[in-house]
Amino acid sequence: MTDAIRPAEPAPEHGGASGAAQPTDIPPELARLRHSIDNIDAALVYLLAERFKATKQVGVLKAQRGLPPSDPGREVRQVARLRELADQADLDPVFAEKFLAFIVEEVIRHHEAIAQDGGREPAGGDATT
Amino acid sequence: MTDAIRPAEPAPEHGGASGAAQPTDIPPELARLRHSIDNIDAALVYLLAERFKATKQVGVLKAQRGLPPSDPGREVRQVARLRELADQADLDPVFAEKFLAFIVEEVIRHHEAIAQDGGREPAGGDATT
Repeated sequence: MTDAIRPAEPAPEHGGASGAAQPTDIPPELARLRHSIDNIDAALVYLLAERFKATKQVGVLKAQRGLPPSDPGREVRQVARLRELADQADLDPVFAEKFLAFIVEEVIRHHEAIAQDGGREPAGGDATT
Repeated sequence: MTDAIRPAEPAPEHGGASGAAQPTDIPPELARLRHSIDNIDAALVYLLAERFKATKQVGVLKAQRGLPPSDPGREVRQVARLRELADQADLDPVFAEKFLAFIVEEVIRHHEAIAQDGGREPAGGDATT
């Protein structure tokens, strides 16, 4: 990618998922920052996809083993850990906690949809994992 | 990390940010999945911190150059791109769009807090970047 070695230039106009096309009349520094933001967003999307794959596997495993779908202790530990990581990363810990809640809400939505679909794979599941 | 090469074993009980401590009486496969989820969450936290660093830089740059804080065209392109990336990653595109909205809401919150604080650095900013 030429952008990777020419960060001060605007990202080229292109469609597709390799970058969010933008006009070429913006300052090069702004284009460089936006390109980094686009790269980070792509990484976030792929990581989120991987996370939901894992939570679905957790749901299947818990259903198979007859384990309870929720684990409040696990969620408490997750929140505490994410707040600590956020502090280290210079991210607002309150936002980190809101972020986890946002993700968990989606996991619950998945599981509700699965239940309405007759409980087909992945059956059950743990919203907090 | 020994967990990385012994994925079938429960993550060790430990405090701190290197992993969310969990009881040792859970199935090894569940512990392995939870450990992956914890790793992904750490990566997400660090990426989000980096993203907010970039959006703050965008805010400073726009204030310095007298550029308008919002750019509706940019947001439209971001949404379209994230939905396409989500489709490729097997992530619900609707969720990807909700995720971007969730992040943008936080950027706006940052900028409002800055404005209430007298507009100190980073002044202004672009919620969508």
